[in-house]
Amino acid sequence: MALNARGKQAASAAKAAGVQALLVTHLPDVRWLCGFTGSNAALVLITGAGARAVLFTDGRYTTQANAEAVGTKVVIAPKSAVLAACEWLAEARVVRCGFDDGNTTVAALKTMRAAIPAKVRRGMFEPVGALVSMLRWVKDAGEIAALRKAAALGCRLFEGTLGSMQAGMAEVTVAAELEYAARLAGAEAMSFPTIVASGERSALPHGKATTAKLPKRGFVTLDFGVVLDGYCSDMTRTVHLGRASTAERTAYDAVLEAQETAVATVRAGVSCGDVDEAARSVLRKAGLDQWFTHSTGHGVGLEIHEGPRLAAKQTQRLEAGMVITIEPGVYLPGKFGVRIEDMVRVTAKGGEILTPSTKAWIEL
Amino acid sequence: MALNARGKQAASAAKAAGVQALLVTHLPDVRWLCGFTGSNAALVLITGAGARAVLFTDGRYTTQANAEAVGTKVVIAPKSAVLAACEWLAEARVVRCGFDDGNTTVAALKTMRAAIPAKVRRGMFEPVGALVSMLRWVKDAGEIAALRKAAALGCRLFEGTLGSMQAGMAEVTVAAELEYAARLAGAEAMSFPTIVASGERSALPHGKATTAKLPKRGFVTLDFGVVLDGYCSDMTRTVHLGRASTAERTAYDAVLEAQETAVATVRAGVSCGDVDEAARSVLRKAGLDQWFTHSTGHGVGLEIHEGPRLAAKQTQRLEAGMVITIEPGVYLPGKFGVRIEDMVRVTAKGGEILTPSTKAWIEL
Repeated sequence: MALNARGKQAASAAKAAGVQALLVTHLPDVRWLCGFTGSNAALVLITGAGARAVLFTDGRYTTQANAEAVGTKVVIAPKSAVLAACEWLAEARVVRCGFDDGNTTVAALKTMRAAIPAKVRRGMFEPVGALVSMLRWVKDAGEIAALRKAAALGCRLFEGTLGSMQAGMAEVTVAAELEYAARLAGAEAMSFPTIVASGERSALPHGKATTAKLPKRGFVTLDFGVVLDGYCSDMTRTVHLGRASTAERTAYDAVLEAQETAVATVRAGVSCGDVDEAARSVLRKAGLDQWFTHSTGHGVGLEIHEGPRLAAKQTQRLEAGMVITIEPGVYLPGKFGVRIEDMVRVTAKGGEILTPSTKAWIEL
Repeated sequence: MALNARGKQAASAAKAAGVQALLVTHLPDVRWLCGFTGSNAALVLITGAGARAVLFTDGRYTTQANAEAVGTKVVIAPKSAVLAACEWLAEARVVRCGFDDGNTTVAALKTMRAAIPAKVRRGMFEPVGALVSMLRWVKDAGEIAALRKAAALGCRLFEGTLGSMQAGMAEVTVAAELEYAARLAGAEAMSFPTIVASGERSALPHGKATTAKLPKRGFVTLDFGVVLDGYCSDMTRTVHLGRASTAERTAYDAVLEAQETAVATVRAGVSCGDVDEAARSVLRKAGLDQWFTHSTGHGVGLEIHEGPRLAAKQTQRLEAGMVITIEPGVYLPGKFGVRIEDMVRVTAKGGEILTPSTKAWIEL
């Protein structure tokens, strides 16, 4: 069976890395390469002449693998998919196979090695890093469309939630209603545990929704995403219940300026560190940078956290087709926090916001 | 700060494994040891004299770590938690540290090693396997109570869903309503993507809910779990819409007998392979064992899939305090499938079902 376009791209990258074959076990990579979505899979790509793919999975997925997998032979293994793949490599007389050392455990490598004849074992497995995941950083037209659709659903959900949020409502109720609406609108899942962080809890960057009640006065940070056709959305908005203090309003305005300034720097060729610095320098001028305790953003796609990483001093350059988040925030412990986040598509000329819900100050 | 009871248990196991310290990075292990629930953490346990724990995390979790962590010092690292932990180990002149090779990537081990002075690097990190995770297989009274509560919520949700399911409803709507009710009842999340597999789709063991409509006649398999106070529930029921064929009813009765027979074998001292064989032999007599394509069950706790594994030939013995699933099923491709699953607490005398919702034949 002929390799599909992504398989060819990966086989070519693996060949350039000097290996005869590539063993792919990271599930989003397997899905990206051949479309299979099962929870147990190993894909072998043969590089060079006779380039081809073989997908290994187990008996639970016979029907699903044959229905989903494209551009690959399917083998149903009686045991672990990765073990079957390694035995196949040995039989195919492959003596140098790349693997993703960032997604392979020390124990798994030991198991992989044990399946290889002793005389070729030593040189067999070569760490080649996140070779396939890095190809996934740049999205094709179909992926951009999927991400656009997921992001648009996120915006509709945020706007719907605004209509129902009020003081006294539990954070988890806000999350429950948002997630229910997401499911009915076709979301397969949420991208990550929904964050609804209100009042003092808004100072927790990762404040998952709790039974805490929304206060009469204070911020509510909503950070959530949906998975639609396998692709993740990610957005954050912070709104205020009741009248805000000057400090709250000042912090909000600074974060918004930092976010918009960073978005304005986005275009192919710019370094990730420069985008981060654009956000950070605005908060520095406002005297708030010490409270901006995380990086500015990350890639998003089949996984909620992909590369590139937008953090201080990152020299990686943005490329057209990347989809990233821009999400500066400030967190004043025991007081309040603000974060504003968009998904942004990188183009040759700039950045296109995929989550156009308003970022203007909202007082409910 | 003195170690808590679980820290002492782990430090003692690590000492028995011949290491001076244990580096714990698997997040459920970190949570079990000290209560911290953040997404970036590394816990160092010093064994032997002066046994103590140090938890490393990053600036996003300053407030949360200090609020949650018990029996450990907390260090906020300016960089990766695991890197900070390794630098601390080097400064503390530890020369032999255990790590879980099943939860540490090849790349992470390389990073860990790079933080250690060259002269002690070679012998520094010793793979000790899932030492902490294996301690977690046996639950204490508090954990049993949490699992009991999660399982009971699962049962209420199943019973509520029975009242609303009908032909023509989309599988995802069934899932959405069940998940919404779960959230309102306090679930932090679902344990795994909810399975609602109807009609021919019931033959997919992992058939996540889709937009497919429930048929007028056919099986619907519901397999779902909630996370409550960090602990996961897991249960499966298969019900029939409309009148069943003889083949459907025969398969259901065989799976139910297999499930009940396996549950009846559960007690401390019995091997996991014997529990699996108890289920499998019933299906063999019914001529259906070729369609029972997965193992009989698994442990459940802070993670949805923990040890022990109840599969063919597993010699591991059950111990009092383990909580396991018993979930045989048969899947006839293109026709139908049936799975029935309970959570079962292992005691010295037998097994206690934590998910007592009826397993009797239900025709809606």
